[in-house]
Amino acid sequence: MSDRVRVTVWNEFRHERHNAEVAKVYPEGIHRALQAGLSAYGFDIGTATLDEPEHGLTADRLNDTDVLVWWGHQAHDEVDDAIVERVQQRVLQGMGLIVLHSGHYSKIFRKLMGTSCALKWREADEKERLWVVKPSHPIAAGLPEYFELEREEMYGEHFDIPDPDELVFVSWFEGGEVFRSGATFSRGQGKIFYFRPGHETYPTYYNEPVLRVIANAVRWAASERGAAPFYGNAQPLEPIAGK
Amino acid sequence: MSDRVRVTVWNEFRHERHNAEVAKVYPEGIHRALQAGLSAYGFDIGTATLDEPEHGLTADRLNDTDVLVWWGHQAHDEVDDAIVERVQQRVLQGMGLIVLHSGHYSKIFRKLMGTSCALKWREADEKERLWVVKPSHPIAAGLPEYFELEREEMYGEHFDIPDPDELVFVSWFEGGEVFRSGATFSRGQGKIFYFRPGHETYPTYYNEPVLRVIANAVRWAASERGAAPFYGNAQPLEPIAGK
Amino acid sequence: MSDRVRVTVWNEFRHERHNAEVAKVYPEGIHRALQAGLSAYGFDIGTATLDEPEHGLTADRLNDTDVLVWWGHQAHDEVDDAIVERVQQRVLQGMGLIVLHSGHYSKIFRKLMGTSCALKWREADEKERLWVVKPSHPIAAGLPEYFELEREEMYGEHFDIPDPDELVFVSWFEGGEVFRSGATFSRGQGKIFYFRPGHETYPTYYNEPVLRVIANAVRWAASERGAAPFYGNAQPLEPIAGK
Amino acid sequence: MSDRVRVTVWNEFRHERHNAEVAKVYPEGIHRALQAGLSAYGFDIGTATLDEPEHGLTADRLNDTDVLVWWGHQAHDEVDDAIVERVQQRVLQGMGLIVLHSGHYSKIFRKLMGTSCALKWREADEKERLWVVKPSHPIAAGLPEYFELEREEMYGEHFDIPDPDELVFVSWFEGGEVFRSGATFSRGQGKIFYFRPGHETYPTYYNEPVLRVIANAVRWAASERGAAPFYGNAQPLEPIAGK
Repeated sequence: MSDRVRVTVWNEFRHERHNAEVAKVYPEGIHRALQAGLSAYGFDIGTATLDEPEHGLTADRLNDTDVLVWWGHQAHDEVDDAIVERVQQRVLQGMGLIVLHSGHYSKIFRKLMGTSCALKWREADEKERLWVVKPSHPIAAGLPEYFELEREEMYGEHFDIPDPDELVFVSWFEGGEVFRSGATFSRGQGKIFYFRPGHETYPTYYNEPVLRVIANAVRWAASERGAAPFYGNAQPLEPIAGK
Repeated sequence: MSDRVRVTVWNEFRHERHNAEVAKVYPEGIHRALQAGLSAYGFDIGTATLDEPEHGLTADRLNDTDVLVWWGHQAHDEVDDAIVERVQQRVLQGMGLIVLHSGHYSKIFRKLMGTSCALKWREADEKERLWVVKPSHPIAAGLPEYFELEREEMYGEHFDIPDPDELVFVSWFEGGEVFRSGATFSRGQGKIFYFRPGHETYPTYYNEPVLRVIANAVRWAASERGAAPFYGNAQPLEPIAGK
Repeated sequence: MSDRVRVTVWNEFRHERHNAEVAKVYPEGIHRALQAGLSAYGFDIGTATLDEPEHGLTADRLNDTDVLVWWGHQAHDEVDDAIVERVQQRVLQGMGLIVLHSGHYSKIFRKLMGTSCALKWREADEKERLWVVKPSHPIAAGLPEYFELEREEMYGEHFDIPDPDELVFVSWFEGGEVFRSGATFSRGQGKIFYFRPGHETYPTYYNEPVLRVIANAVRWAASERGAAPFYGNAQPLEPIAGK
Repeated sequence: MSDRVRVTVWNEFRHERHNAEVAKVYPEGIHRALQAGLSAYGFDIGTATLDEPEHGLTADRLNDTDVLVWWGHQAHDEVDDAIVERVQQRVLQGMGLIVLHSGHYSKIFRKLMGTSCALKWREADEKERLWVVKPSHPIAAGLPEYFELEREEMYGEHFDIPDPDELVFVSWFEGGEVFRSGATFSRGQGKIFYFRPGHETYPTYYNEPVLRVIANAVRWAASERGAAPFYGNAQPLEPIAGK
C-alpha cells in the first residue's frame, strides 16, 4: 500500500471538446494538463469528468480520494445534486478540496461556503500579478514574493465568500481591480483551498508557479487530522450535582 | 419614520403548545418571552411562527426586518425550502441573523454555514458557565467576565461549524464538556451570531445576561454597512495594454 | 457629562513646520485638518503633538481619551518609550487606536503587533483605488464599493503584520502593487484599526471617503465592551475532587 | 546534510535544580524529558538553558534551529533583552516557536503577541480535559477528540492574547474554568504555537498525547514557506501615468 497522496482531478470537460480555441490550448482537456503538470510532485493522480456515469465521482472513488481538484464553468447546473451532496459529506469527513477559477460558482463550492460566491469578471487579456500576503503558509512554499500571468481573465472584488481562515494570495489586475485569489477554509474535518487563475483560453495550467501552488495546496489539504468526533446524545464525563 | 432597529423573533412554537412542562415556562411561547425581554432595549420587535402562512416570513416582512432572531427545534424539516432560500438571500443582502440554541440544526443555519452543524448534547439539568473570551467585542458590552445558568441542556464540542470570524463566549459544563457558545460570522453583507443557551424546559430567556447578549447582538448585527457590490461583467477602470 | 466619543488626534507635526510643500497642504498640521474634517461626526476632538510635554499624552489625557488617532513618520524614534508603554497599557484597558499611514512604523504599532510592520513603498504620484472586501463591516458604512485617491504614496505587500481579525480594504496601485489597507486587530480590551492613506504631501485628509472611514473606525473602536477580567490566582468555582 | 527538522528545546532549568519535588518528576530537567519524549518523532533535538552563556541561544545556534520550544517560569526577567530580540528576529525570518505553559509570560511571547498574556491560574491538583475544536488541523493529527490530564495547574480565561489564527484546543477544568489551550499565530515568516499543559510538579511531559501535540506542532511550524519579501523603496512594475 502506498502512502502517496491520492488526487482526483475533476473537470467539466466541455469547452475543450466544443470550442476550437480552447482545444488548441488544452487538446486533451484541463484535467489531463493538470494530471501531467502535477505528476512531478509524487501524487497518485486520477481524473473524472462531468459526462462519465455519476460524473466519475462514485462513492468508492471519493472514498479513495484524499484531495479532489475541481474545475467547472458552463455546466455547473448539470452536476447532479446527489453527487454534490456526496462530495460535501466526504469533505466534512476529511477529503481535501481545491477549487479552481470558475469553480467559484460550482454547486459544491457555494454549498460549502453558504454565500453566493459572486464576483466581478472581464475577459480582456489583461495581466494578473499574484502577491503572497502570508509567506509563512505552506501553500506559498518555494514561491517568490509575487508571480505574474501575462494574460488572464479578470476576477474582481467584492468576492462574496465568508472570511477565509487564511488569505495567502491577493491579485492585482491591469484593468484596476484586486482579488483575494488564494484563500483557505475548513469545513468539518476537510480543508478547502480556492485558487483563482485558470481561464480556459489561456495556458495557465502549464505555468510553473501555478502548478506549484496547486501541488502545495494538495499536500496541505491531505495532511493527517484528528479523530472523527462523536456527535449526538453524550454521557456525562463528570458527576453532575444531585444526580 | 423610525430609526429604531426592526427585529423579528421567529419561533417554531410547537413545544409550548403541546408540552405542559414547556408551557409552564413559556406560556405564550418563547417568541413572546423574547419580545418582552428585549423590549427594554428600544427595538421595534415583531414575531413570526412556523404555523403562520409562509411561516410569517413573507418577502415584505423580511424586507422590513433588520435583524431576525431564530429559535427552532423539533420541526426544522417543516420549514419550507423556498422560505429558507428567501431568508438566506436577505441575509446576503444585509439582514442580521441571531440563531439561538437548537437553531444550530435549522435549515437556514446549516445552509449559511456549509457544514453539518452537529454537536454533542445531553439533558441533565447541569450548570453552564459562559466565559467571555473576547472582552473587546460589543456583544460582551456590559457583561461580567462570566455568567452562569444553573440548569441547562449541555452542548459539547466538537461543534461542526466553520471557524467563526470572532469567538466571544466559551461555555463550561458541569458534566465535563466545553462549547464555543457565542460566535460571529459574516455572509455577504449580513452578520450572523450563534448563541447557545435556551433549552425550552428552562427559563433561560428570562435571564438578564442572556437577554443582554441577545440585545447586544441585535445592535451589532444591525449596524450600517457598505454599498451593495456590483457582481458580473465589469468594464475596465484603467487602460489595458494593447487595447 | 457628555456621552460623545472623546477623540485625541496625535500628530508628529514636524513635516508641516519644516517643509514648505507639506505646509502648503496642511498649514496648521495634519492634526488640525483631521480635527476639522472629523468635527461633522459629533465627536469631542482634541489634539496632541510630539513636541508638547510628554508628547501631549499625559496619563490624565489618555484616561480621558476613548479613541486615539496616530500619525507619525520621520521622528518615530523620538517618541519616549515610557509614553509608548503608557499608550499600550491604555489600549489593553480598552482605549481604541487608529493608526494612519506611516504610523505603521511607529513604536506603538510595532509593539502592539509584535512584527516588523515593514512594507514596500514608493513616492511616485500614483493612483490608489481602495476596494471594500468586507462590506458587512461597520467601518465600510456608507461607502461605495471602492473609492480612489488620484495621487498617493504607494505601500505594497508583503506588509509584515499579524493576520488581521478582519480585513476591510485592499488597495490597488497604478504601479503594480496591492496592499491590505484597512485591517482590524484587538489587543486586550482595546480595538485597533490600521488605515493606509495619508502621505503628507497629498491632501488625503480632506477627502470625504477617507474622513468617513476614520470616523467609522472611531465609532467602531469606541463601542462598549465587557468587564475588565480578573488576572491572577483564582479560587475554584466548583468543588475539586478530594479537596 | 540531513533534512530532519532541527529542534532546540529551551528550558529555564531552575525549579529542577532547586526544588526537590520538581527534581523527582524531572531529575534531568524538563528539556531532557522533552528531548527524550520527542526523539521517537525523527527530529534532531538539542537543548539550551538559561544559565548557559547567551542562554545557549547564540546567533549560530538560532540559525541552525528550525523550531524552538520554550519553557520558562520563575526567571523570565533574567532572560537578556538582546537575546529576546535575537529570537524575535529569527521568528520573523521563519523559525518556528512552540511556547509551553508558563512560557505565556516569557518576554519573547509577550513581545510577539503585543498583549499582557495574563490569565487566571490555580494550583489545586485538578483535572484538565483538552477538547479538539479544529479536528482538521495537523496539530490534532492522530489525537482522539479529547484527552485528559489527571492533575494539572489550572489556567483560566480571560487569556489576554490576540485572536489566534486558529484555535485547536479548548480546556475544561474541574474547578470551573475554560481555557484556549492550543492556539496558532504567525509573525513574519514564522509560525507560533502556544500549548498550555506542563506545570513543573506534574509528569505532563511524559504523557503521550501531550508529546504528540508538541511533535505535531514542531512539524507544522517547520514547514517550507514562501520567499523572504523585499521591504523598502520599490521600483514600479507598471508604467505610471504621466511618468
